[in-house]
Parts: sequence; C-alpha cells; structure tokens
Amino acid sequence: MDFSELFDFLKLDSTSAKGKGKEAGKFLRDKLLELKADVMEIPENPNPYVIGKINVGGKRTLVVYNHYDVQPAEELDKWDSNPFDPVTKGDRIYARGVADDKGTLLARLQAVRDMIKEGTLRTNVIFFYEGEEEIGSPNMKKFLEKHAEVIKGDFLLWEGAGRASNNSPQIVLGVKGLLYVEIRFKTAKDLHSMYAPIADNPVWRMTSFLNELKKDEKVNLTGFYSKVRRISEEQKKSLLKLDKGKMEEALGQSIPNDFPVKLVEEPTCNIAGIFGGYTGQGSKTVIPSYCFVKMDFRLVPDMSPEEVLETLKPLAEKWGGEVVVYGMEEPFRTSPTSFFAKAVRESALRAYATEPVIWPNSPGTGPMAAVAKYTGITEIADGVGVDSYDSNIHSFNENIRKDDYQIIINQMKYLVKLLE
Amino acid sequence: MDFSELFDFLKLDSTSAKGKGKEAGKFLRDKLLELKADVMEIPENPNPYVIGKINVGGKRTLVVYNHYDVQPAEELDKWDSNPFDPVTKGDRIYARGVADDKGTLLARLQAVRDMIKEGTLRTNVIFFYEGEEEIGSPNMKKFLEKHAEVIKGDFLLWEGAGRASNNSPQIVLGVKGLLYVEIRFKTAKDLHSMYAPIADNPVWRMTSFLNELKKDEKVNLTGFYSKVRRISEEQKKSLLKLDKGKMEEALGQSIPNDFPVKLVEEPTCNIAGIFGGYTGQGSKTVIPSYCFVKMDFRLVPDMSPEEVLETLKPLAEKWGGEVVVYGMEEPFRTSPTSFFAKAVRESALRAYATEPVIWPNSPGTGPMAAVAKYTGITEIADGVGVDSYDSNIHSFNENIRKDDYQIIINQMKYLVKLLE
Repeated sequence: MDFSELFDFLKLDSTSAKGKGKEAGKFLRDKLLELKADVMEIPENPNPYVIGKINVGGKRTLVVYNHYDVQPAEELDKWDSNPFDPVTKGDRIYARGVADDKGTLLARLQAVRDMIKEGTLRTNVIFFYEGEEEIGSPNMKKFLEKHAEVIKGDFLLWEGAGRASNNSPQIVLGVKGLLYVEIRFKTAKDLHSMYAPIADNPVWRMTSFLNELKKDEKVNLTGFYSKVRRISEEQKKSLLKLDKGKMEEALGQSIPNDFPVKLVEEPTCNIAGIFGGYTGQGSKTVIPSYCFVKMDFRLVPDMSPEEVLETLKPLAEKWGGEVVVYGMEEPFRTSPTSFFAKAVRESALRAYATEPVIWPNSPGTGPMAAVAKYTGITEIADGVGVDSYDSNIHSFNENIRKDDYQIIINQMKYLVKLLE
Repeated sequence: MDFSELFDFLKLDSTSAKGKGKEAGKFLRDKLLELKADVMEIPENPNPYVIGKINVGGKRTLVVYNHYDVQPAEELDKWDSNPFDPVTKGDRIYARGVADDKGTLLARLQAVRDMIKEGTLRTNVIFFYEGEEEIGSPNMKKFLEKHAEVIKGDFLLWEGAGRASNNSPQIVLGVKGLLYVEIRFKTAKDLHSMYAPIADNPVWRMTSFLNELKKDEKVNLTGFYSKVRRISEEQKKSLLKLDKGKMEEALGQSIPNDFPVKLVEEPTCNIAGIFGGYTGQGSKTVIPSYCFVKMDFRLVPDMSPEEVLETLKPLAEKWGGEVVVYGMEEPFRTSPTSFFAKAVRESALRAYATEPVIWPNSPGTGPMAAVAKYTGITEIADGVGVDSYDSNIHSFNENIRKDDYQIIINQMKYLVKLLE
C-alpha cells in the first residue's frame, strides 16, 4: 500500500486552536478539483469549509463529512516521533491527525476516486470538509444558516468510527452535545503571600466553585440529570460485548464494568485545564491575581447546552468567576432501524466479516444536531473509520493500523454501492 | 547629606538570582577593613558571607545582620529610571536595593563608624552580611552549622523594618515559619475528554483534596490551630493604630479591620500556583494526566513545619497526591519585655519622636529560629531601617525617603549606646 498521499496530508500542521489549517484546506480543494468535482470553498472563518459535489445522476445523495483540522500536539516531548512527520513502525502509522480525522477523510476519498475510475459510482456524493471541528465548530451554525443548501442529501456519513475495544467495527448513531467554557477569577494584582491572612486568593475561590459544582461525583446544577434519555436493554446488550480489559489497557487505568453504557448515557463535567500563579521550577511565595479553569460538559439527549450554561453562570458568579463560552453543541441520535443505519451496519459486516457494535450515540461530540436542523437530513451515522480504541486520539503518539486503511477503502465502496 | 557612598554601593548589581554579588561583597569587605574590624569572608556559596567584628572590650555584643543581595529588577520597562543608577527625585532616592537592604546596611555601618571616630563606641559590634537572602538563604543552615561561633553575641538586629502605613517606625520581634510544598497528582496518560464518564481526572482529585484541606476559610488539618500562641490585648492595641486605607491602597483590595492582628496571629495555607492540562489559547477537550499545586503555609509560634507536614501528607495521599517539600522554617518570637526589645523601642522613640508600632512577629518569614538555635542568641529584633510601607520592595521604582537615612544613622547610635 502506498501511503505517500496520506503522509503529505499529515505533514501539514492544521491545528485549529492555533489558527492553522489554510494549507490543508488548499490540499483538499486541489484533490477535489482533480476529481472534477463541483468545488466550493466557503471562507466564513480562518479555516474554510471545502465542499466537493460529484453528481452522477444517482437516485440518492450521500454527504460525507470529515474535518481536516487537528488538536494541538502538545506536549511535544511525550511523542516518540515528530507529530507532523509521519512514520511507519510495526503495524502502525504515527502522526497527529492520522486517526482523527485525516486518515479516514483520505481513505473515503480514495474509495470514491476508485469508483469513478472504475465507472461504478451510481450514488451522488458530496464531500463536506470542515477545518474547525477540534475547537468546537464555532462557525458551523453560521455556515449552515447561509449555506445548508450546498450539503443537502439523503444521508450523512459522520467523521469516522473505527474499531471498538473488542476489535469489532463500530457504528455510532449520534453524538453527545457539548458546552465548553473557560471560567476566570481575578484580583487587582499579585501579592506577597505574607498577606494571605487578609487578602483574597482567586485560586481558592476557583476551587470552592469547582467543589460546589461537583459533589460526590455528581454535577450539582439544577436539572442537570432530569432530561437524560436512557437507552434500551437491547442496546445495552450490544454494547456490553466490548472488551473491558483492552479499554483499560488503552486508558491506562481501571474502569467500571458497565463502561459502554456510562459512555453513552452519562453527561459529564470535565476539567480540561487549570492555571494560576507561579507554575515554574521550585518555589515562589505569591498570591496569584489571576487564574482560570477550562471545562467541557458532554451532554446527552435531550439536554441543552444553553440550559446548562444558564444554571452554570450564577454558580460561577457567586464565586466571582467570569464565564467565557468557547463552544456549544446540541446532542443527537438517529434511529437504529433507519435505512442508512442498516446500510452502514451491512457495509461493516462485509468489510470486517464481523458484526459491528452499535452505539446509540458517541461519548464524543460533533455538530450533528445543527447539520440535521439546517439540511433536513435525519439519517446521520458514524462508522467507516481508520481509527481504533487504542489510537491515542487527542493525545501523544496518535496512530492507526496500516491494514485498516485498505479495509476502510473497501467498506466505503460497499456502503456507496448499498445506497444506490 | 552626602549620599555618594550609598550611591556607589547601589550601582553594584548584586542580584543573587542571577549569581551576581561578588563586587558588592568585596565593597563591604573593604569598608570593614577600613574600620580595622576583624574581617572574615566565608565563601560557602557564590555570594560569600562577609563578617566584621569590632571588639572594643564592651560588656555586650550586638550582631547586626543585613543582606547585600537584591531581587531581580525586572520588569525593567516599568522603572522610571535605571534601577542600578540611583537618582534623587523630590524627597526620595530611587534604586534597586535602596530599601531592601542596602540603605539600611550602610546607614547602620555609618553610625558605628561615626561612634568609632568620636570615641564613643562601648558596645562590641559584629556585622553579619549575607548575599543570598533574596533567593531564600539556601546556604544559611550549612553556614550556621559550621560557623555559628563567629556570630555569637547577646543580641541580633535583623535586616530592617522602617515606617509602617501610619508613618510610625515599626519594630518586629519575630517571624512566621514556613512550609512550602508542591503536591502532584497523576494518571498514566492524557485522555480524550469523551472518556470522562469512566476515567479518573487527577485535577478533580486535586480540587477535592484542596477542598478538604480548607473548609469555611479554616485549615482542616488535625491540630493546625492548637499551637497558635495568641497575642495580648495590649499588643493588639499597638497594631490597630495602623492605617487601613493605605494598606488597602497598597494591596488593591479591601481588607478586614483587624488586619494587623490577622497578619501576626493567623497561620495560612496559600495556593501560590496551580497547573494541569491544557492552558493555552482556546479549547482542548482532554482529561489531563498530570497536575500540581504549589502551596505555602505560614506558621506562627508554636507551630512546627514538620508537624504540619506530617498531617498534610496523609490527606494528600488519600487523594493520590505526592508531596514534594521545597522549604521549611520554624517561627520565632522575642519577648517584648526583653532588654533588647525595650532598647530598640526606646531608640525608635528617640529618633522619630513617635511611639513605634510593635509587631510580635512579621507576617513574613526568615531564618531567625535557625540563627537563634545555632548561636544561642534569644533576643532578636527587627527595626532600625530606612524602608517604609511604600518603598516598593521587590517591585519597580524601589525607593526610600532621603531624610530617613539620617534618622536611621541617629537611631542606630542611640541603640548601640543603650546596649552598653
């Protein structure tokens, strides 16, 4: 297998948190132009939406969503190789973004390119590429409001969901919602810590806030759990086939037995970053004048990020915190009995010769709900992805299995065929 | 008043954090040799201890401690003049170290020189100069273990404590102790925050630890307050004369009415720094694998840093935290009814014609207890200093009042005379 095209793509640092991504966007536009697709570049933001339509006069249209941006590669010293200089080692390829989401993006494109060359493409395909997924898709709503027309179709294939922890392929029929905030606490100036008996320390206010926010492992916001939609016993059964030992190995820690059910059903309140005062070597006796905490809340159907924000704000303000919102997404689920959900399941069964695990929703987030609302597409599924449970997504040494790249090209061909 | 000798001293950059100080040490050795003192230079470290003994066959011996090193002058662009090129403007002299501690050092030396010239010196004096105070006196214990003999005397005058916020002179009869720790919390690796429903987040453990450590503004360690020695109503009265408004202006925030009592009596538990996960721009959805908090505990008599550490460790360990110790100092107080405390008070009253404010101990820390232990000197006081509450110590535009230089020369003469 020749990975040179993939490696070229991986070498382009497209970290959206740092405003990078222009080069990767251009790379994709050129690839779509080569396919003679109808290409649009919609520069609503620093990293443009890139859209390529291939109309073969088919009965149905599949929209293929992927993102070309990546998470920051920090901390760099933890990587065994340069995150933007892909390498093959053993059965794996290592690079930032190879699993999330550049590998999947390019394998799918390759499948459609093959079908065009072979003259077997009978389903219309719209490639829909975003460059800001990793920062919470801040411009997705604006894009959809203005341009939803250009991505109208019958089905939407989400960014990719590869192997589960029992090595089966997995299909994901929804996403969790998200509320990402930074909460800041301040005073006028740094002070010598001898003034601690009389001076306000904003870090203590922050930790008091955090403690009031989460009590006994539960989120202490009014109504936080009241709208959680539970999954069926049958859905639980499929999920509980997953391999707990492998998941523990991948995470490097022990987890509860009902881990997949928790991943699907449980809303979260996570501290992603915390900072204040002197964080260099050794000691400095200071009362910091500034601190912040970065938090993400993952929300399940039928919760709403706006509602969570409304209950969060007064609690933060009670402790003198200022809430800055970095991202909001609604949660979403597609029915497992829909035509598209069934076709994705069938394509996985053929490509892997294994029954896929079906997730009612991902433990992760994406703008499925917004896409559904503006395009009217109600059948949205994730699957057909080169990543796996041990891909170290968002962490160091991100990787995929080399062989999965070809499997995904095959699966994509089956799926496109099934949708004719 | 001729400030040329002071200006020559201030021009020598003796920033100990940058390893400077040799020139200033040599400057002092030469001054002591001119006095025909018995001079020792003890090079335990890059900036040597410089000691000068003047034995006039007096009944008592006063040890005069000062430090010749200074804090880094950064940030340089905030200074109105070059920190190492002293200037006189209005009623003030501006330069790095003029208040902390070079001005006081030289005014005291000048007083003793005058008394020698006048033939009025009847008290033995030992000048004890350190060059590493501003980096936490890392070699003081080693010095004391080996050389305490050379600074044995009856009394020890600490580095200087000038005008309080009501403009009165102030005398400080002790220091708080210190325990400085960093507490670290870890897991095997960073994880995508979608795993939050099942994965351990060490930052939540850290905030739970901090919350359990401090409840309702009180430190929740066994026996933490049981050894706090309270000050008398009379001592409180003297302290409550201090100007609250000026202190609030200096700190940039409102403070309680009994602020000086709290500064003296209250042991503290301060967060000096906190760090974990993603702290860059924007958002990253990660479960951090590592976090830490840097904390300083200021301890009052009769608390012990070792005892606090012993109660802290099990609490940190309960939450999976590892405690690293960066520094420990014992608290110390000299009796206000001691001969030396009374003499210092009397000298201030004469020099300023104002009743001094008497602090049973400073809200800050210094190695008084260690000095007392190794030299056997039990009467240690601070006072006789050219600095004032608005001297901008450790900050930019450090300054003293020109007139205070002569006042301190006078006060030093009164004190030395009183000790005969």
